[in-house]
Amino acid sequence: MSQYWSPAVRELTPYVPGEQPRERVIKLNTNENPYPPAPGVSEALRNYAVDHLRLYPDPTSLALRETLADTYGVSVAETFVGNGSDEVLAFAFQAFFCHGAPLDVPSITYSFYPVYANLYGVELRKHPLNNQWEVDLDALANDSERSGVIFANPNAPTGHAHSLESIEALLKRVADRVVLIDEAYVDFGAESTVALVERYPNLLVTGTFSKSRSLAGLRLGYAIGSPELIEGLQRVKDSFNSYPVDSLASVVGIEALKDTQHFNACRDNVITTRERTRQRLEGLGFEVLPSKANFLLAQHPDFAGAQLFAGLRERGILVRHFNTNLLNNFLRISIGTDDEMDSFIEALESLSG
Amino acid sequence: MSQYWSPAVRELTPYVPGEQPRERVIKLNTNENPYPPAPGVSEALRNYAVDHLRLYPDPTSLALRETLADTYGVSVAETFVGNGSDEVLAFAFQAFFCHGAPLDVPSITYSFYPVYANLYGVELRKHPLNNQWEVDLDALANDSERSGVIFANPNAPTGHAHSLESIEALLKRVADRVVLIDEAYVDFGAESTVALVERYPNLLVTGTFSKSRSLAGLRLGYAIGSPELIEGLQRVKDSFNSYPVDSLASVVGIEALKDTQHFNACRDNVITTRERTRQRLEGLGFEVLPSKANFLLAQHPDFAGAQLFAGLRERGILVRHFNTNLLNNFLRISIGTDDEMDSFIEALESLSG
Repeated sequence: MSQYWSPAVRELTPYVPGEQPRERVIKLNTNENPYPPAPGVSEALRNYAVDHLRLYPDPTSLALRETLADTYGVSVAETFVGNGSDEVLAFAFQAFFCHGAPLDVPSITYSFYPVYANLYGVELRKHPLNNQWEVDLDALANDSERSGVIFANPNAPTGHAHSLESIEALLKRVADRVVLIDEAYVDFGAESTVALVERYPNLLVTGTFSKSRSLAGLRLGYAIGSPELIEGLQRVKDSFNSYPVDSLASVVGIEALKDTQHFNACRDNVITTRERTRQRLEGLGFEVLPSKANFLLAQHPDFAGAQLFAGLRERGILVRHFNTNLLNNFLRISIGTDDEMDSFIEALESLSG
Repeated sequence: MSQYWSPAVRELTPYVPGEQPRERVIKLNTNENPYPPAPGVSEALRNYAVDHLRLYPDPTSLALRETLADTYGVSVAETFVGNGSDEVLAFAFQAFFCHGAPLDVPSITYSFYPVYANLYGVELRKHPLNNQWEVDLDALANDSERSGVIFANPNAPTGHAHSLESIEALLKRVADRVVLIDEAYVDFGAESTVALVERYPNLLVTGTFSKSRSLAGLRLGYAIGSPELIEGLQRVKDSFNSYPVDSLASVVGIEALKDTQHFNACRDNVITTRERTRQRLEGLGFEVLPSKANFLLAQHPDFAGAQLFAGLRERGILVRHFNTNLLNNFLRISIGTDDEMDSFIEALESLSG
C-alpha cells in the first residue's frame, strides 16, 4: 500500500498466471501447445530485415488483419488484433461493459474476467454452472438490464463447449448489449461463432495465437465482430497505445495463420492425446469432464486436488490447481505430447496406487 | 457512435500518431532513429530457438529488467517494462493520477497525455510554457492540491530540457504525489533524473527503446522509480495483461541495452547532424528552438508551417505539423542521416527560395 497509488489501485486483486518454472519440468499448467509454431515462423525470423525495427509498426496492423480476415472468411473491418487476447479482453471491458449495469458471467469461467471487472469498475452478476458443469445460457440471458454477457466457449477450466445453435438462441435474447464469446480454445473441437458475426452486430468473438498456433510467447490475440464493435475497440486501443502489436509479432503471426497443414496436424495430435489421456485417467478412477479444449479438468474421489498437485510437483510435473471452493478438488491438466502424458499418468499411478 | 459502446468511449478522442507511409519517402515525422539497432539484435533473432515461442513469457520480465537495472545503476525492484513507453504511461495514469484532483501538465508537451487523461477521467491543469518555450517548473508546482505532475524532459515537441537541479527543486515542492518525468528523448543530450530516484520515492522516470535504441518497431518501454511506485504499476499491469512484453522483445531488448558502443556512436551521430541541421535551417532564415532531443522545432517568418509541410510532402519528405493554435506555424523535424537532412534542406531551399 502506498500513498501515491490511486485509491482504486489499492483495491485491485491482480490476476495470477500459472507459474513459469526456470528448472526443467513437464509443464502441463498453462495450456500451452506441446508442438512448435509453423516452420515458416523460424524462416521469417531468420530472414527478417532487422533495420526495419528502427521504424514504428503500422498502427492499424493491416497486413496481419488481412491474413486474419482471409483465414476466418470475414472483412478486414471486422477484425482487431492486440497484445494477446488478454489485452483484447481488457479493451473490450472498457469499450463495451461500462454501462453501470451488471455484466452477466458464469460463476466458473476464465478467472481474468473478475480482475478486469475490478479494474474498470464493472459489477459482475455470476450465474452457477448447471449440474453438468456447463455454462447455463438460459440463466445468463434471464435479466433485462445488463452491461453485456461474457463467457469462454469452450469454457475454462471445464472444457465444455456449447453448440452454435444454443449460442444463437442466447444472441436472440440479448440484442441490446455486447455478447463476448472468448474462443481461446475453440480450435480443439468446438464450433466457432465467427459464423454468426454477420447476423449479430452485438457479437464479439475473441481468440488467441497462444494455444492452437503455438505462439504463447509472442502475445497475439484478436477479435472478430461487426465494424461498429471493432471501431469501439480501436477507440480504446488508440487512447492507450498506438502500436500494441510489434513488427516482429505481425510477421510471425502471418506465417502462423498461413500454415493450415501444420495447424491441423498439431491440433489433431492434441485432440488424440487428450482422448487417450482421458481414458487413462478414468482407468485410474478419476472423474474427467468432457473437454473440447487442450486441457482436462479431473478429480478423484479418494485424493484431494491439492495433495495430487503437490505430489506431481515433487515429481517434476506441473498442473494447475485452483484454490476455490468449487474447484478445490480438481486438477486442470494441459495436454502435452504423448510422452509427457505417459510420464504424468505414471506419476499419478505412483501417487494414487 | 454505437449503442454498444460504453458511454465514456463515445467521448474519447484517440491519439493520432505520425503517419507510416507505404511508399518510399524520407521519413522525418515520428522521431525514429536513422541508424539500425545494435548488431547483436540481428544475431539474437537468427539464433532464437523458435520452439520457445510456444511457451508463455516470464510475466515479470526478469532477465530484461536485470539488464535494465545494470544499465541504469538501480535495483531490479526499481524497474518496470512494458509494451512501449506509451503502455507504461497509460499504466502510470491509472496507477497514480486518479485521485480526483487535477494533474499538473505543461500546455505544450507530448500530445498523448490529454488522451490518457480522457481515458482515465483525469482532469488536467495546463500551464503555459515560459517565453523561451520552456516548461515552467514553478507554475507546475504552484497549487497545493493535485493528482500529480507530468512532463517530458526534453520536452516534446520543443526539445528543451531542464537541468537536474531545477527538477530536484520541483520534487522538493511536490512530495505528496507522483512526479512523472518522461525521458523518451533524454539520451540525445539531456541529464537523466534516474540519478534522483533513490532520494525521491515519488519520482517516476519513464523511457523507451524506440528512439536512442532504434527499436520503435519492437515496442519496449520502461519505468524507473521507488519499489512502491513500481509495485503500483505492476498491480495495474497484472490486472490488464500478464505478459505485455513478449519473449522475442525481451531477448532483443537485452542485446540493445548491452551494446554501449553502438548506442554511443548512433547517439553522437544524431547530435552532430542535429546541430549541423540547425545551422543550415538558421541560414535559411528559420527560428529553431534549442533542442536536446532527436528532432528540431522550427518556424519561418515568411512561410506558414502548413504550406512548408505540404511542399515537403510533395517532394517525398515527411515532417510533422501540429494543427494547434500555438504550434501551427512550426514544423517538427526528426533528425535523419546526413544525406537525408541534405535532401530535406535542398527541398526547403526550393520551397523558400
